Amino acid sequence: MNRYSLNQATTKYWPLEDVVAASAKAGLEWIGLWREPIQEYGVDQAAKLVADAGLKVSSLCRSGFFTSTDAAERKAKIEDNRRAIDEAATVGTPVLVLVSGGLPAGSRDLDGARAMVRDGLAELAPYAEERGVTLAVEALHPMFCSDRCVVATLGQALEIAAPHPADAVGVCIDTYHLWWDDQVWKGIEQAGREGRIASFQLADWITPLPEGVLLGRGLPGEQ
Amino acid sequence: MNRYSLNQATTKYWPLEDVVAASAKAGLEWIGLWREPIQEYGVDQAAKLVADAGLKVSSLCRSGFFTSTDAAERKAKIEDNRRAIDEAATVGTPVLVLVSGGLPAGSRDLDGARAMVRDGLAELAPYAEERGVTLAVEALHPMFCSDRCVVATLGQALEIAAPHPADAVGVCIDTYHLWWDDQVWKGIEQAGREGRIASFQLADWITPLPEGVLLGRGLPGEQ
Repeated sequence: MNRYSLNQATTKYWPLEDVVAASAKAGLEWIGLWREPIQEYGVDQAAKLVADAGLKVSSLCRSGFFTSTDAAERKAKIEDNRRAIDEAATVGTPVLVLVSGGLPAGSRDLDGARAMVRDGLAELAPYAEERGVTLAVEALHPMFCSDRCVVATLGQALEIAAPHPADAVGVCIDTYHLWWDDQVWKGIEQAGREGRIASFQLADWITPLPEGVLLGRGLPGEQ
Repeated sequence: MNRYSLNQATTKYWPLEDVVAASAKAGLEWIGLWREPIQEYGVDQAAKLVADAGLKVSSLCRSGFFTSTDAAERKAKIEDNRRAIDEAATVGTPVLVLVSGGLPAGSRDLDGARAMVRDGLAELAPYAEERGVTLAVEALHPMFCSDRCVVATLGQALEIAAPHPADAVGVCIDTYHLWWDDQVWKGIEQAGREGRIASFQLADWITPLPEGVLLGRGLPGEQ
C-alpha cells in the first residue's frame, strides 16, 4: 500500500478538481483535504469527486481554534468543530486535524488558553468517537505560539490527548513544526506506543526563515 | 540591593563609555557586558571604566558556538571560549553566557551538533570553575535552532548542565526565548532547586514577528 498522501495545502491555489485529478493521475491513493475548499465546492460533491477518482481521504484540515475569552464565541467554535467532525465523516476520513488557536486577543494568559483547549477537546471527543473520527492535535512550531497555536510540542499534544481514548483524540506529527525538539524522538515513541499517531505531515524547515513564514516549507532534502 | 542589570545589547549602538555613564547616572548597580565592544575598548580598560563608575558586571555575553564538523575549528572555538572565561574574570563577572551554535554548515545532524555542545562544555567546565566563572547555557527560541543555537528549551539546557557542578555550569533563563514552553515553570523550579540560575534575561515577545527577528524585542508589558 502506498501510504503517501498529498496535503491539499501543498497545492493551495489549485482548484479542487485539478488537485484531485492530478493526484489520481500521479498514482496516489490518498489525499489530505482542507475545509474551506471543500465547503466552497460542496462537501457531499467533494466526497463524490474524490471517491470517483479512486482516492481516499487521509485527513481533513483543520479545526480547533478553541481560544477566546468570550464564552459565546467559544461555544460557537465548539459548534464549528462539530460541523468539522461531520464534514470529516462525510468525506470518509478517519482524521480531523486540530490547531488549538493562539492567545485570545489582548490576553497574555497562556495557561488559561491551554485550559480552553483541554475544555474544548473534552466537549468534542465523545462526538468525534461517535462519528468515527479521530481528532489529531497538532503542535505548531513555537514561533506560532502567540497568534495561532498554544500547543507547541509533541509532548504537550500528547499530554492534552491523554485523558481521551486514542480513537477519539490522537496527535498530528509535523516534521516542519517539531524537528528542533530534543524530546521529539521520545514523544514519537510514546505516541506510537499509545496508538495516537493519527497523522504524519512531512515538510522541511528553511533557514533563514522565509518572509512568508506561515506558508514557507522546504521539499525534504532540497534546501 | 537593586538586582536589575542593563544588558549592553539593549543599547547595542551606544559607545561603551556612554552606556556605562548612563547606567551609573540612572542609579544602576549592575551592567551586562558583551565581548566585542569590550575587546574593542580593551578588556582591562573596560574593567577599570566600569569599576570607576561604581558598577558591577552581572554577566559577559557571549561565547559558545561549539558546533563545527571541522576538528581544528572546534579546537579553535574551545580556545576562544577559554579567552572568554579570562575576559569574564578580568571584568570581575561571575557569569559567562553561552549560546551553543546551530547546525554546522551543510550538516543536518542535530543530535551530533548537540553532542559537540556537551563535549565543549566538558572541556571548559574545569577551567571556568578554576577562574571562578559560571558558564550559563542559554536556550534560544526554537526558531534559531538551525542557524544559531541547537539548545532550544530550558529542560535541554538543564540536561546539558547536569554533569557539571552548578558553580561551573548553570543556565541563562531568557523570557523572550522561553515563554512559549509549557514545561518552563517546571524547568525554572528545577533550576532554582539545583542552584543553576546563573542569569535571568528579561524581554518580551512581539507578535507578529518583527522583520529583524534576531534583535526584535518588546519592553515587557508594552506590546
